[in-house]
Amino acid sequence: MIVIKLGGSVISDKNVPYSFNREVLENIAEEISQFYPKESFILVHGGGSFGHPNARKYKIREGLTGDVKGKRIGFSKTHQAMLKLNDLIIQTFLEKGLPAYSISSSSIFLIEKGEIVYGELEVLRKLLEKGFIPVLFGDTAVALDKGIDILSGDQIVCYLAKMFKPSKVVFLMDVDGIYTKNPKEEGAELIKELTKEGIEHLLESSESAGIDVTGGIGNKLKKALEIAHYSDVYFINGKVKENLGKAIRGEKVGTRIKV
Amino acid sequence: MIVIKLGGSVISDKNVPYSFNREVLENIAEEISQFYPKESFILVHGGGSFGHPNARKYKIREGLTGDVKGKRIGFSKTHQAMLKLNDLIIQTFLEKGLPAYSISSSSIFLIEKGEIVYGELEVLRKLLEKGFIPVLFGDTAVALDKGIDILSGDQIVCYLAKMFKPSKVVFLMDVDGIYTKNPKEEGAELIKELTKEGIEHLLESSESAGIDVTGGIGNKLKKALEIAHYSDVYFINGKVKENLGKAIRGEKVGTRIKV
Repeated sequence: MIVIKLGGSVISDKNVPYSFNREVLENIAEEISQFYPKESFILVHGGGSFGHPNARKYKIREGLTGDVKGKRIGFSKTHQAMLKLNDLIIQTFLEKGLPAYSISSSSIFLIEKGEIVYGELEVLRKLLEKGFIPVLFGDTAVALDKGIDILSGDQIVCYLAKMFKPSKVVFLMDVDGIYTKNPKEEGAELIKELTKEGIEHLLESSESAGIDVTGGIGNKLKKALEIAHYSDVYFINGKVKENLGKAIRGEKVGTRIKV
Repeated sequence: MIVIKLGGSVISDKNVPYSFNREVLENIAEEISQFYPKESFILVHGGGSFGHPNARKYKIREGLTGDVKGKRIGFSKTHQAMLKLNDLIIQTFLEKGLPAYSISSSSIFLIEKGEIVYGELEVLRKLLEKGFIPVLFGDTAVALDKGIDILSGDQIVCYLAKMFKPSKVVFLMDVDGIYTKNPKEEGAELIKELTKEGIEHLLESSESAGIDVTGGIGNKLKKALEIAHYSDVYFINGKVKENLGKAIRGEKVGTRIKV
């Protein structure tokens, strides 16, 4: 099994509200088609310009405080916006003949301190058994501590990796992988293989790249470290054709985590 | 707690694909507003002209047989169509200030012989605790026997009623309640109170009304009989203003089940 995280910045232009990179998604679907059904997949996508503006507008991360009535409405609106992005992705995969099937993350997960503390995975298991490609997404979620919160796609990937022990976990980003510093800065170099010590060093000297409301690259690396004990973990540029195929075949591409 | 079933024929014109009775839904939302948040609610809606044409086209009820690849695609397309109807309902409730929150039925239920045999309700419980109005819907679902199948809204209502023992369960239909025979036939009379024996008699002399792919009125009555042991059950015309309020207040309206 392979778990693929479709980063929000890959599927959508974060600066253009409700934008969808259809061509990028079509390429990704075509690459997956080369391996499915021999290989099974779970996909998890981020919020892009559907999720983040709503999450910010309604201050979901602050929890169920202040204008509680308004918060509840905003919480639901944010989920509905995520379902719209999810629909675009599902439809793109279906058109390419892949049996993607939507699972609403907020219907099966409960979180605390931003981390999943409860997940109902039986339906997901059965969908895999029946040959489907379950598609989950970063979402609003009920939080045991704050009432409501944002559940990031990276959290979901980490949780699923722990539960299913996939052979590979591939993070699709809009840069070529993990860099020695913020890739927008001069002198930033792509790290082709990253060890446990390398990640710890990066985290210390961190703020390595842009931060978004779901945590940014620092959290991603912490998660990668947890996952890398049982899965091959790749960070690749999801906008570059054939990159995903290379990662699935175990070829050199992007950043590979070695622990 | 009150569980309300919004029948497909109330929210949508079954003869007009993808039609939505916005005004009817607005009236229903306004009536619920008079009782929420003092009273808590779970809503379940049917497929109307979003669900049934897709379910039929892709022969979902036949299970994962024949053109299995095509079946998987159709299964997912039918779910996505249901999510579109669900979005229209959620948005209507949000506009009326009610914190409706979508739960994807197929993310939490597994079925066998058309009946729910496994349900993950923890998120739903927490949503209720936090003051939300969970909204579920008739949906495609993974089936332990046939691989895939249709899960009717009535099945969901029955399951939730058993689990939550609501004070009332109200079925909104496009006729005034349960009749002595098919309400389209001459001489059909509305039954104001229906006993266990009355239901058994009706079921025997049945085919009392039109049949749809999710079972029709016969199954509805069997479900009502199961539920009526712990909840007040009403069948009312959801298109008539103020009917829902009357049922919630326990006034005489439509058909009330007495066991």
